[in-house]
Amino acid sequence: MAKRLESTPKKDGFRMPGEFEPQKQIWMLWPERPDNWRSGAKPAQKAFAEVAKAISQFEPVTVCVSKEQYASCRNTLPRDIRVVEMASNDAWIRDCGPTFLTNDKGEVRAVDWEFNAWGGLFDGLYFPWDQDNMVAQKVCEIEYVDTYKTHDFVLEGGSIHVDGEGTLITTEMCLLSEGRNPDMSREEIEEKLKEYLNLEKIIWLGDGIDPDETNGHIDDVACFIRPGEVGCIWSDDENSQFYEAARAAYKTLSEATDAKGRKLKVHKLCMPKNYVTIRGDFDIDYVEGTIPREEGEVSIASYMNFLIVNGGVIVPQYGDENDELALKTIQEWFPERKAVGVRTEEIAYGGGNIHCVTQQQCK
Amino acid sequence: MAKRLESTPKKDGFRMPGEFEPQKQIWMLWPERPDNWRSGAKPAQKAFAEVAKAISQFEPVTVCVSKEQYASCRNTLPRDIRVVEMASNDAWIRDCGPTFLTNDKGEVRAVDWEFNAWGGLFDGLYFPWDQDNMVAQKVCEIEYVDTYKTHDFVLEGGSIHVDGEGTLITTEMCLLSEGRNPDMSREEIEEKLKEYLNLEKIIWLGDGIDPDETNGHIDDVACFIRPGEVGCIWSDDENSQFYEAARAAYKTLSEATDAKGRKLKVHKLCMPKNYVTIRGDFDIDYVEGTIPREEGEVSIASYMNFLIVNGGVIVPQYGDENDELALKTIQEWFPERKAVGVRTEEIAYGGGNIHCVTQQQCK
Repeated sequence: MAKRLESTPKKDGFRMPGEFEPQKQIWMLWPERPDNWRSGAKPAQKAFAEVAKAISQFEPVTVCVSKEQYASCRNTLPRDIRVVEMASNDAWIRDCGPTFLTNDKGEVRAVDWEFNAWGGLFDGLYFPWDQDNMVAQKVCEIEYVDTYKTHDFVLEGGSIHVDGEGTLITTEMCLLSEGRNPDMSREEIEEKLKEYLNLEKIIWLGDGIDPDETNGHIDDVACFIRPGEVGCIWSDDENSQFYEAARAAYKTLSEATDAKGRKLKVHKLCMPKNYVTIRGDFDIDYVEGTIPREEGEVSIASYMNFLIVNGGVIVPQYGDENDELALKTIQEWFPERKAVGVRTEEIAYGGGNIHCVTQQQCK
Repeated sequence: MAKRLESTPKKDGFRMPGEFEPQKQIWMLWPERPDNWRSGAKPAQKAFAEVAKAISQFEPVTVCVSKEQYASCRNTLPRDIRVVEMASNDAWIRDCGPTFLTNDKGEVRAVDWEFNAWGGLFDGLYFPWDQDNMVAQKVCEIEYVDTYKTHDFVLEGGSIHVDGEGTLITTEMCLLSEGRNPDMSREEIEEKLKEYLNLEKIIWLGDGIDPDETNGHIDDVACFIRPGEVGCIWSDDENSQFYEAARAAYKTLSEATDAKGRKLKVHKLCMPKNYVTIRGDFDIDYVEGTIPREEGEVSIASYMNFLIVNGGVIVPQYGDENDELALKTIQEWFPERKAVGVRTEEIAYGGGNIHCVTQQQCK
């Protein structure tokens, strides 16, 4: 039980399923660090709790929390959400958590990628990241899930999306960045992804929309709605800082074929009408090297950072004019699921959104 | 899942099964605190690992460990033993862990007793005990087991044994001690036990054999082998410090009838021929109020502190002349199980033994 496997998923017949495939549960981490989340993380904790509650309407949720915050987290969340103790350096389980895999028999395994806080000593966002790097193993051990550990390969879950049928989309900005696997060629990286996620084809987009934090994770830009269909952010506002990246991504996806040789159908998703900016004081603990955040500062905020769950889609809302349009668009993409919006500015202020703070465990 | 129940087990038809009934797994905590376990707890960790390995021949084991010791514990134990992160104040899960219950449908729930480190501010063994007191809840939440919490009632699992058919044995020395439930009468305590463990009859022994630490836990003195049959420690050595308590316990049990009206059959178990004494340096961190332990000091060490598992019995061994006799006796009590001895002096030096550091989860 919870063995470390020396083979690879491809060799063993395991693949990463699409997010739209059946899930057992969603994992989250509880936000806590007062040098990233304002006001002692209390506003962020409320937003995380709302996300957890929204998901728990559709399927089970487990929230992992430090021993220090355990009682408070347990008391904040309803009892139908499982709370387990687990240390971490921050709360981005999409990136430090396991990538769950399945095979034709419905067995479940996972990849435990090397995690280095989005760039390690080159341009990582904090130090150390030792506890984050043990999250995947701890999650899998609770669940008795065997893992493949890529000691020599850094990857975050937010930098990839798959269709479950052999195709992966990602960005060059992130996967070819200096802070991840600088000694590997693009071909070697492709090979690693194919071996550990059981893929035939990688579709490379160029830039993401947050160069400074995740180095352009795909999960703010595009995703698979189902095999053969993708969503992609779009803006008609030439002055938008996201205009170029969105157009380029759309163009690449529109011209791409997937592992099965299908031409992708690409659906557009609006961005918030106005930039999501920090409102009110942003009081965080001082850490050497921190750039202070202030009222009015722009947070990267994309509606694309939603989470697909069994029978539902949990969609970020920002109090923006386009909130309703985004929710409506996503609802149309998933007629068989219920789209539910959750206000998540406080998560955006911390550097991510619903997809970044969740990780699905497949059935 | 993992709800807090407002009713009581008796009302809901749940009972504590005998230790000899089918188990799902055994829970343990990893020893760590350097003010109790000598040499940075390294010798104790080895002994705990041997206990865990012995149990895992028979059924699954989960070991809970602090984030600080996680990697080391994970590396020490074989992969077929599950390791999960969990803070605690020390490593006595028999006493701070949940008491699992079952009903006629085979459903499982648990009692989460109030824990106060064997006497709280009156004569408890350490302060604080806040993390220990959350262990039961955390264990049950990992397992999706609903719990009954006795906010107003202090009890340790090591102070009780049941036959699963309505009878409990315990000691007055512990349950009537000033540090547990001083405002409750003996009758009120009986009532609480009957309500939370679904009992008809409490058999009270007088003293245990370790007045200073657990205030005389039953699990060093006597236990149920099966319904209608108990084991009890015995010594023919009038100079033994355990002589009187052993005789008195034997007498009480021999004269007792159980909840079903059966006269108990009482089997004698030898004590170690010589006292188990500390051998070698005993280097621990200094804490105000600590009484230093030294080479030659006597540790409370009883063969009775064994653990019954599916198909096995894990028995303490001390390098004493009587080790073999004790193992042979216990093997005879359980002809359908395999008795396995494990050297546990290092656990005894810390204040307990195999039964104290384990907690069974029933099926």
